[in-house]
Amino acid sequence: MQKLVLIRHGESVWNHENRFTGWTDVDLYADGCEQAKCAGQLLKKQGFTFDAGYASVLKRSIKTLHILLEELDHLWIPVIKSWRLNERFYGALQGLNKQEIINKYGIEQVQKWRRDPNEDPPPITKEDDRYPGHDIRYKNLTEVELPLTENLKQTMDRVLPLWNNEIVPVLKNKQKIIICAHGNSLRALVKYLDKLTDEDVTKLEIPTATPLVYELDDELNRLRHYYLQ
Amino acid sequence: MQKLVLIRHGESVWNHENRFTGWTDVDLYADGCEQAKCAGQLLKKQGFTFDAGYASVLKRSIKTLHILLEELDHLWIPVIKSWRLNERFYGALQGLNKQEIINKYGIEQVQKWRRDPNEDPPPITKEDDRYPGHDIRYKNLTEVELPLTENLKQTMDRVLPLWNNEIVPVLKNKQKIIICAHGNSLRALVKYLDKLTDEDVTKLEIPTATPLVYELDDELNRLRHYYLQ
Repeated sequence: MQKLVLIRHGESVWNHENRFTGWTDVDLYADGCEQAKCAGQLLKKQGFTFDAGYASVLKRSIKTLHILLEELDHLWIPVIKSWRLNERFYGALQGLNKQEIINKYGIEQVQKWRRDPNEDPPPITKEDDRYPGHDIRYKNLTEVELPLTENLKQTMDRVLPLWNNEIVPVLKNKQKIIICAHGNSLRALVKYLDKLTDEDVTKLEIPTATPLVYELDDELNRLRHYYLQ
Repeated sequence: MQKLVLIRHGESVWNHENRFTGWTDVDLYADGCEQAKCAGQLLKKQGFTFDAGYASVLKRSIKTLHILLEELDHLWIPVIKSWRLNERFYGALQGLNKQEIINKYGIEQVQKWRRDPNEDPPPITKEDDRYPGHDIRYKNLTEVELPLTENLKQTMDRVLPLWNNEIVPVLKNKQKIIICAHGNSLRALVKYLDKLTDEDVTKLEIPTATPLVYELDDELNRLRHYYLQ
């Protein structure tokens, strides 16, 4: 039996302001740093150790992982950062206040954008400042990989190659890892690990900075999972 | 022409207490965090960007790099941590107050331990708590690689394989890198890059948290170097 820990980043400034964030590189809110610290202390208290950590290329994920690893006295482990763990790219919704969008489009449409795996948020254009093609950290991505918008299905499709090609071999090598990512990139992983239906996923809520422990068998099938509290 | 930046970690708690640190994983002193932040701001102001960062597996080096990269808005770049960039292993001197050792052994002997490339500090035994074989982060090192003491020559001998095997190919690939390490692991690199004699090295002082910029030609020969201020 092997343990894998998933954790969503601590509260960000835009979580706090109730804005759609996506790939915008928003910092942790002060509370988010405190949450990350508590998560690290909790893992330490329960005797967790790790051989490697994974994060997205967004600072709210990286900083959450760094803070947590410092509490665990684990800053020295390798940390791999991948755009594939980024939050879902929310297209033209990025930066907008969720309440304003609800007022404009109605709660039903907004719920669809947030939870229906096949519903695209309104796309941006390549001229938009928010287009990732303008950001140096994505310079090695192909044009097809650079999103204008993303539905949850597409997020899942770009998260899973990292899982299959990089994380699975590491887990099969009996390495203990922690993945610190985002609401929707984790939703994609949980959908895969728990074999959830599209309908199940619409109801799935992953709380911030709360370690979600998976116990896996040798074939990486889920034996059980639970939140550490 | 290509730039490479070397930087020594910010002031640590034991720097502040004037104790020999070596591989002891001492945290940054509050001033050290501030120094790292200033170094990051300085690099940012002068337009430096990096494709990758290197640190030791000691938290004073890793945290200095993290703080500096955050100031540069560069937390997303790959950070490679290697024991080969660790501070020199100071043997039985680790943890002791420098003034007390001077009082006991005399300033001349202490200067020799600190600066003579072939002078071994008194070794520890494998039963000593300070033996790195007891520390999980060194579990992949061979017995020969686990030091009981280290002179500067030996430090240099274990730093250079990282330089030759990992850093040189990256530099030749035109990647811009920053190496955040320690007084003696940097002394080893500077001795190599500047082709210094043993005599020169005894006089070499590398200040904390001050970016040392190397301009290199295509063959990675030094064109010039300077401290950023």
